[in-house]
This record gives sequence, structure tokens and C-alpha cells, in this order.
Amino acid sequence: MQRQHIVTFIGTRTVNVPTGTLLTEAAALAGQEITQPCGGQGRCGRCAVFIKTGQVRHRSTQRLTAADVAAGYALACQAVIESNISVVVPEQEKVERRLTTDLTAAEVTLPPGYEPAQSQTLQYLRLDLPPPNMDDQTDDWSRVQLALRHHTGQQVFNAPLAVLRKLGPALREGDWRITILLETETWDRPADLATVLDILPGHLPEDTPIWGAAIDIGTTTVTVWLVDLHTGQVVAQAAEYNGQIVRGEDVISRIIYAGKSDGGAELKTLVLETVNALLHTVCKRASTTPDRVFKVALAGNSTMMHLLLQIPAESIRLSPFITGMNHPPTLTAHEVGLDIVPHATVDCLPGVASYVGADISAGVLATELYTTEPVTLFMDVGTNGETVLGNQDWLVTCACSAGPAFEGAGVLHGMRATNGAIEEVWIHHTTYEPTCRVIGGKAPRGFCGSGLISLLAEMFLTGLLDKSGNIKLDLPTSRVRTGLHGPEYVVAWGDETATGEDIVITHVDIDNLLRAKAAIYAGYAVLAESVGVSLDMVEQVMIGGAFGQYINVEKAVQIGLLPDLPWEQFHFLGNTSVRGAYHALIDRDARRHLKAIADRMTYIELSADNRFYEAFTSALFLPHTDLSRFPTVQAEMV
Amino acid sequence: MQRQHIVTFIGTRTVNVPTGTLLTEAAALAGQEITQPCGGQGRCGRCAVFIKTGQVRHRSTQRLTAADVAAGYALACQAVIESNISVVVPEQEKVERRLTTDLTAAEVTLPPGYEPAQSQTLQYLRLDLPPPNMDDQTDDWSRVQLALRHHTGQQVFNAPLAVLRKLGPALREGDWRITILLETETWDRPADLATVLDILPGHLPEDTPIWGAAIDIGTTTVTVWLVDLHTGQVVAQAAEYNGQIVRGEDVISRIIYAGKSDGGAELKTLVLETVNALLHTVCKRASTTPDRVFKVALAGNSTMMHLLLQIPAESIRLSPFITGMNHPPTLTAHEVGLDIVPHATVDCLPGVASYVGADISAGVLATELYTTEPVTLFMDVGTNGETVLGNQDWLVTCACSAGPAFEGAGVLHGMRATNGAIEEVWIHHTTYEPTCRVIGGKAPRGFCGSGLISLLAEMFLTGLLDKSGNIKLDLPTSRVRTGLHGPEYVVAWGDETATGEDIVITHVDIDNLLRAKAAIYAGYAVLAESVGVSLDMVEQVMIGGAFGQYINVEKAVQIGLLPDLPWEQFHFLGNTSVRGAYHALIDRDARRHLKAIADRMTYIELSADNRFYEAFTSALFLPHTDLSRFPTVQAEMV
Repeated sequence: MQRQHIVTFIGTRTVNVPTGTLLTEAAALAGQEITQPCGGQGRCGRCAVFIKTGQVRHRSTQRLTAADVAAGYALACQAVIESNISVVVPEQEKVERRLTTDLTAAEVTLPPGYEPAQSQTLQYLRLDLPPPNMDDQTDDWSRVQLALRHHTGQQVFNAPLAVLRKLGPALREGDWRITILLETETWDRPADLATVLDILPGHLPEDTPIWGAAIDIGTTTVTVWLVDLHTGQVVAQAAEYNGQIVRGEDVISRIIYAGKSDGGAELKTLVLETVNALLHTVCKRASTTPDRVFKVALAGNSTMMHLLLQIPAESIRLSPFITGMNHPPTLTAHEVGLDIVPHATVDCLPGVASYVGADISAGVLATELYTTEPVTLFMDVGTNGETVLGNQDWLVTCACSAGPAFEGAGVLHGMRATNGAIEEVWIHHTTYEPTCRVIGGKAPRGFCGSGLISLLAEMFLTGLLDKSGNIKLDLPTSRVRTGLHGPEYVVAWGDETATGEDIVITHVDIDNLLRAKAAIYAGYAVLAESVGVSLDMVEQVMIGGAFGQYINVEKAVQIGLLPDLPWEQFHFLGNTSVRGAYHALIDRDARRHLKAIADRMTYIELSADNRFYEAFTSALFLPHTDLSRFPTVQAEMV
Repeated sequence: MQRQHIVTFIGTRTVNVPTGTLLTEAAALAGQEITQPCGGQGRCGRCAVFIKTGQVRHRSTQRLTAADVAAGYALACQAVIESNISVVVPEQEKVERRLTTDLTAAEVTLPPGYEPAQSQTLQYLRLDLPPPNMDDQTDDWSRVQLALRHHTGQQVFNAPLAVLRKLGPALREGDWRITILLETETWDRPADLATVLDILPGHLPEDTPIWGAAIDIGTTTVTVWLVDLHTGQVVAQAAEYNGQIVRGEDVISRIIYAGKSDGGAELKTLVLETVNALLHTVCKRASTTPDRVFKVALAGNSTMMHLLLQIPAESIRLSPFITGMNHPPTLTAHEVGLDIVPHATVDCLPGVASYVGADISAGVLATELYTTEPVTLFMDVGTNGETVLGNQDWLVTCACSAGPAFEGAGVLHGMRATNGAIEEVWIHHTTYEPTCRVIGGKAPRGFCGSGLISLLAEMFLTGLLDKSGNIKLDLPTSRVRTGLHGPEYVVAWGDETATGEDIVITHVDIDNLLRAKAAIYAGYAVLAESVGVSLDMVEQVMIGGAFGQYINVEKAVQIGLLPDLPWEQFHFLGNTSVRGAYHALIDRDARRHLKAIADRMTYIELSADNRFYEAFTSALFLPHTDLSRFPTVQAEMV
């Protein structure tokens, strides 16, 4: 028989496990939460725990120092249990809130010329039916279909059994006056077959809302807009961190986690919990309930869509990088697991490729890039660095695997944009003393993305960094020094910080940030090159994504992340993905456009493109090898 | 606080109930099975129990004698609990088996000229796909759709999420060779949208079966045929009593039961248990499993269809007798509750009216009545007495509420056609001594329908009955006498019977039987009259239904139940309902024909037709008031 060991999570529970069990598995068994931002690959170091008694075998100590290991620390995802142990799980980094519902509901404007009655495909029909008698024994369902044919001109109607069951009682309770909720078409079921979604006795008032939801599943944040389809108006909004974060912060970690046994089911459940909680929240705000939500439009990157639908995602991360599907057929809420009307239709927006998903198609729709004349660059400045270049005549797109450095990962004191994050830094030109703005206004705990961009730009312009990103150690300030990880610059001394430790940026951090910004720059540079356009022909830059909203354009240009254009040409649009989903929800034409957009976008696979590596290498400098590409930065450097 | 009483079901359980509870409700609470063939209306008397201690209040004792009540018997459905009691539940009449799978699977012949590849709408497609590479990053689902378009010419494909989840793994496991199960059309979703029902790695052998099921939900019996759609052959058959029988033997009792709280849900569950058990049985016989059954065609009378789908059926029994729907739209197995592939399509066959259901449309299809030249009478001799008269040019139909007398109900010693039922009787012309044939060959317990027809005919021809159905008490035999219920004839003395009691037929029984046969005769007489056809113009009579198979034509003509035609013009076809469902399952043309049949059939509502009451009154004699209508019987009477 296999040996069993007792694992005690101090303060919570004790479990028995066979020898060889991973500490994370034992924790799951004990119901002890342990954050695994990298998905249990031993890469992030955030699952470190203290082994109080007993010993574990370390599969990897990559993210621990020798001193840590000697002191008894272990990475839970890499710790193999081979004896009885007791474990202290430090308080995990709590997910704090700086979630933006980037607009108030009232600020979301309807598309120009939008006519709900023409554009949307759900409608209440108020029918007055002749009652049956001995000379007219027409059955209830045929009687309703006759009236529907007369009202709509459509010929064939179907209905889920759950709705059919309501028909007879509704007719008799309403004395042959009923209200029918009809969906006249869906994405893959054109107008010749309409579906009865609901049947109610009597005539509902003319202004009765028809509830639908536009949903964006971001890797970090899930956003839900509740929409009255009768008017097209957004009535409530809510956003929340994607519950999958505890199983990986980036898409690759999540795909790996999903590949483990039950990992896919767990990730699906986690994100569904987030989505369903948000649906309840928005419904509550609108004084309704999710069981009155009859349609959903869903956007998100390709990985998020696969994980939500629990479609195997492994092929997304392995060459040649293939999705299970870029455009799922119309599904039902019941199939997907959404806690709304079970037969509500769920339209997943179409994506283009493994790393250019429905969120980007949605963005192109929402920004109207596909109908503009000026050459426009649309970027989602995030882990995947999705970029679209084009106008009404052509669209090219790529993803440049920028990595999560700008989201705080891969940076020693990086963190998400929550309380305690340094979001902007100014450095004095002669003393090299920094001034910081911290989210929440309290003592700092680390840097978020906008803080890192700002810090990098300031360090470069003040001469703390050379153009290759090296920290100049010979400057007259104690803030530059050589630490455990090599050269570093101290932004906050321990006595000013929330942790009591110095907050520093290291040479390794800077290297990671340079690689991220170079990847993004190289992405749009190759797009431009591939269509024979030079970057100064770009007439406007549209930046989507929650992160995009906090970027200081000037600083981002200074480090060579954004192209050197007058800053009035930059537009920050917030969550363009949910906005695109919203358009698809309320407008059949928008759905047609989306399909055309996804079909039209030419995807450039950068990982197979030598031009990308050349452009990337040239961009690994501040702001760029070729200073002529950044004339305004060059002017400031003098 | 309401008073509570202790109810002890001796030998099983004890429960506490509030005062005023019905004994059947207390039994349900205790998990004590009590048969209620009339649905708890106090009409059938089969739920009689013995109150050993304590007393109940009798709402009705209609079916008990004063002696029964004095001895402590009570109808459980009519007994109101007002004190502590203990109850003995007699062993309930066990449902015994004389179920006919009327043909062996091998005897079911394919429709003439039937070509499975042309006619049926499910097919396996074996695809060889080019693998993706860095120059062809088409997503899996688009890749499959491209190939499907090429193979089928159809443009739009969808798939349930459960199937989409299998796509990526199947493609890779099969090394880009897969087999797709495609449904190219359904009843209400014509050929422009095909559904992928299954995806399997590799190429399945060419002769792989595609399993479907044809199901008939009879009031008494449920029949399931398992069909290989690839060949169209029936591979296994099974039949079983409808589990709803314990809650009412006829449709009216069931509708009333369904109207009670939770009654509808219970009846649905009961019939689903029967159907699902049969599906398992037939699959086992064919060495497969229900999770490989991808399509179902369902027939049954209108009430059975409503109760299966749990659609409110109350309006069926109340004037003006309206069904919720004669033709449900295409449903899924999951919605219906069938234990097969959840997204399998369920085609319910179309019916015509409350009492002319899909079983009759199916019968017209299966008998080919709608394409024959001779004027044909099609009858389902049962409770509802559904009748169709017509040919290729016209079809009229009615239901005549014959009542359940021929099924043994409303007859003192009536019973179903199970072991112990007298199924044929011969009476000596001078001694009036009977000879009986008993199902199972043992001591008799009562009469089944065919036995009653036979008995009635013999009693009439031997002079035991006059033409009004009166028993002649002055004949020289001790077998005619006046009993508790009036005049009666003793068919078996107590010492020959299984119960030890005399088996008799009473004047009341004969009256009920005359009413039933008169209703059936009047039904087809009115149909003929309504189209200006006289009954001797009828060239053939087709009799469907399990009961029909056991009728002795000669005797049935002698009592005036069937029209007086040469007996080679009668055809007994067994279960024409399941046969029609089978055709609908395997043949898209048959589905089109069925729709046309249901639309074409002119329904004559007899309850509003004075001609019916006249015809009924004239038929309340043996064989009929107008003897010229039964010339061969007249000849025998001389």
C-alpha cells in the first residue's frame, strides 16, 4: 500500500494524502486557497508557503533564494509531499479593486441613426386571438402561429418545450390576449425560422424592457452591460476580476492549467461564477432578475472564449497556433452555463486567430476603424499586444506576445493597478530623487504598468538609463546600487513603503520592459511594412483595453512604445471589446459587419516572420535604434 | 394548530398527517403504492383498502357495497383521515404481460423503393482534412465546415457545444481524419442549416449503424423500435405497459390526475421511466447503448403526447376540446427527458384534434390509406374509437368516445387481456352451457375485450339475449338468474375460477357494451353519411391497435360493432402508430406526407352532431335497428 502522510494547514484543516502528492493538490483537498498566478508552473513564485514542521522535496526552487529554501519556504506548486508536514500559508495577495466601468450607463450613446425596431431581433408581439369554439377547434399552438404569420410575414416558428408548456395557461389566463417574445433571427439561423422565447398572459405595456447582456471576458477583468433591447440603452454595468486569475495571470498559464485533469472544468466554473455574479449584480441594479435576460453577446480573446466554453485550448499555444473555433455557432445559455433564461441565445463574436480574438474584432467594430478613411492604428496594449492597422479599404492585424511586463508580472515589484501601486513617477534631473503618485494615496507596495512606463521614461530622460537600458551606477546618488539581482534603482526606501522593504527597479526588470515595448513597436511596424505604409502615414491611434486608459502618451512615446505622433491623434477608448459586443447585441447589421470584419482582417503571424525579429531587435533601445523615428523625443534629449 | 393523525400502513410505514388528508395522499407520503386506475375519482373502486383500526370519512362509496363499508373497506381516494388509523392495503392487481411486439424485427419490411441514402437525413461523412500549418492557420471548426460544404453543398452548419468540445481532440487523435454525423434537415429546419450531431476520430467503417428510435406512447402500452438509419432496418423491438396506468386507465382519468398539483410532473416521470427502460432494452438487444441513439420519432394519442411533454392537457377534456398543440416543433431529447444523446432531435408526429392524435395520422401513413383508390375504413377499436374514412382523394375522421368497456373497464368481471382472461366463449344452443378459452390456459378470472365481444355474440345468437340486450330469465338453465346487479348470466361457476367466485356478465355490463359498440358504429356511419357514401361502398376495413388483433371479425359483425362486409376485406394491422413513427423516422418524404395527411383530414366533431345521436340510438340494438344493414347476421338469426 502507498504510504500516507498527514498534511496540516495551520489554522485551517488537516488532510491525509499519498506520498508524492503536490502541496497544491493537498491544499485543494483541504479547501485551502493558494494563489497560482502562473498556473502551477513554478514560474511566478507567488504560491510560496512556509513549511513549519517536516520536509518536502522541491521540484524547482527557481523563484526562491537559497536563503528562502534554507528558512523553510517552498513553492506549493513544486513541493512534493514525502512525510508528515505542517504548513503556514501566508496571507495571499488579495485581489483589490480598481475596476473601471469606464463609462456610466448614461454615457453610452446609441449608434447614430439606430432604430431599435429595425435593428434588433427580439420583439414583444401583443396578440388578440379569436377564442376557439366547436366550429373552430384549432389547437393553441397553431392558433398562435397563424397570428404570428399574419403579424410578421414569417412562416415557420418554433419554441423550446419550456415555453410551449406556458402557452395553454397563458391563453386562458389572458382570455386569448397574450404577449409573445419573438426572436426573428440569429446569427446562423436567418429570417425564415423565428423562435418564441416567452409567452405571457395579457398585453404587456409598450415600454416593457427586453433584457439582453453584452459581456466581455477579459483575461483579467470580466465586464457585463445590461441592455434594454427595446430601446437599445445600456441600463447597468458591472465589472469584476476574472475568477480564473488564481489559476494563472496570463493566457498561456491558463491554457496549461486547463490541460491538467479537471483543470478545464475548474477554469470554466471559475469564470462562470464571475459572469453569473455580475449578471445578478446588473439585474439587481435594474430591478430585474437574470431569468428575464433573453439574449447575450459575448466577446473576449480566443483563449478566454475557449476556456469559458470548455473547448480544448491546447492547440492555441502550440505551433502552428490553431484555435478550436474562431466563431462558435449560436449557443444557448443552458449549454454555456449562464444563469439566465436557459434557452436564451448566446452569440459569441467572431475572432481572427489564436491571438487576435473576438475582443479585437469587437474593437474594430466599436472604433469604426472598418469604415474610416484615415489610416488608423488600433492597439490593445496588454500581454498579447493585439494590433490592427487599416481603414475602410484594408485591415491587417497581428499579436506580438509582449508578455505581461506592463501588467506587473516579470517585474520584481510589479503588481496590478490596485491600491498601493505607483502609477506615475517624476525624477529630479540633478538629484535623481523621485516623486510618486500611488493609487489610493497610501504607502506604495509596487509598480503598476503606467507607473513602469512613467519610471522608464523618466530614468531615460534624466540619464539614469542609457539608450540600451543600462542603469548608470556611477551617478551621485545612493539610489543606484548593485543589489541581489544586479544593478537597481531605489524608487522608495523601506521606511516609506507598505512592506517595509525598498521598492526598486532592477536591470532585469528593465530588460523585460524593453522587450515588451519592443515587441509591441515591432508588431505595428511590421503591419505597416507589410502593406507598404510608413508609420508617419498613420493618422490616428486608438488604444483599447482598461490598461490603455491610464497610459501617459508622452511617456509612452518617450520610451518608444507608441509611435511619435501629435498626442491629439491618440484616442483612449477603454473597453472596446464589451462595446463591440453591445453593438452586436442590439444590431443585426453590426453582427453582419462583425462577420465581414473578421473575414477581412489579414492576420500576420509574427512568430514566422523575420521582419518581426529585425524590427524587435532595433526597438530594444530607448526610444529606438533609429532616433529619426522619434523626432520629438530626440528634441527633448538634447 | 391543525390536528395530526398517525396513519399506519400495516407491514410498511407509519406517517403523521394533518386532519382532512386523503388516504391516497397519506399513502404517497409513506411511499405506499396504491393503484388508482380512474385517477382518484372514486369511479373504478380499485383502490379499496381495509381500515383495520380507527375510522375514515367516506366522500363516496359509489363502488362499494353497504356490506363492504360495514366490514371496514374504504376507497383510498375517497377516504378522509380524521383520526389515527391503521390500514391494510390488499395486494394490488399486478399488471401482467400480454404485450405484443406484433412483428419480429425481421418481418418489418422497408417501404417499397426505399433508398436510405436518399430518404433519411442522418449520415456519417468521412473527412480527410489538410492539417494546419503556419501558412494555413484556419481554425478547426472552419476547416471542418469548409470540408462539409464541399461534401454536401450545404452552406451553414451548427453544432451543440457538447459536440464542438470533441472537435479539436478528435482531429488530432485521428490525425486529421474524422467522421462527422450530420443531420441535414429536420421537420421545421429545412435543408439550409445542417447540424453536426457527433464527431469521432478516424474513419468509421462504412456499415456503422446510425441508431434512431420509433416510439409509440399508447394509453396502455408503450412500444419502442430501434432502427439502424443507415439501412432503414428495424433491429430490435420492445413493448411495456405505460407506467401511468397506476394513475388512470383512460385518457380522461389521466388528464384529471395531471391537473392535480404535481400530477403532471408525476405522469411525465412515469411514462419517461417506461420509455427510457424500453430504450435500454432495445439497445441492449442490438449490443449498443442509448447514448448512441441520435434521432427519435414519437407517436401517440393527443393526451399521451401532452402528458409526455408535460403540456397542460385540461383543455382536451373540456368543451370545445382544444389541444395545446397538434404538432409540436422539433424538440431535443434533453428537453423531453429521453435518456439518449441529449441533443438528439425528437420529431413528434402531427395529430388532428383532441381525440384524433398523431397515432391516427401515423396509422393513415402506415396503412397507406392516403394513397389507396378503394374507399377504406381505418379504425382503432379502443376507448376513443378513432376512425378514418377515405382514400387518396379525401379523408374524414372522428373519435366516438366508446369508453373503456371493450378494454374490460365498466364491466363487473372485466379485465385486461392478461393471464386468466376469458378471450373467447362458445355457448350451446340448447343447454346454454358455455365453453371458454382462457389466456394462459388456467382457471379464469374475468373477461377481456375479445371475450366480451364473443360472449355477447353467442348470447344473442343462442337467444340468451334479445335484440335490445335484455337477458331472458325464463330459459331452462340455472346460469341465468337475478343477482345483486340485476339479471346476469354465469359464465363460470366459482369452483372453476381463480377467485372462487362466479364469473358473470350482468345486464349493466351488457348495457355498457352495447353503448360502446353503438358509439363506434355510429362514428363510422356518420363519417360515411357526411361524405355521402353508404357503408356498403366501403371496400376494405383496416383495424389498428393491439386490441384489434384479437377481435373475431365474425362475432364483431354479429353484435354490430364492425360493418357487415366479407371478412377477407378486413385487415388487422397491429400497432400502426409505431409503424407510422418508423416511417417518419427513416424517410423525409414520409414526414412530408404526414404533415399533408394531418392537414387534409377533415375532423368531424361528433359531440356537436345530432346525426351521431340518431345513429347511436339506432345502433343500441343487436346487431342494429335496421337489420338490412347486417344481411349475413339476419341470415344466421333465422
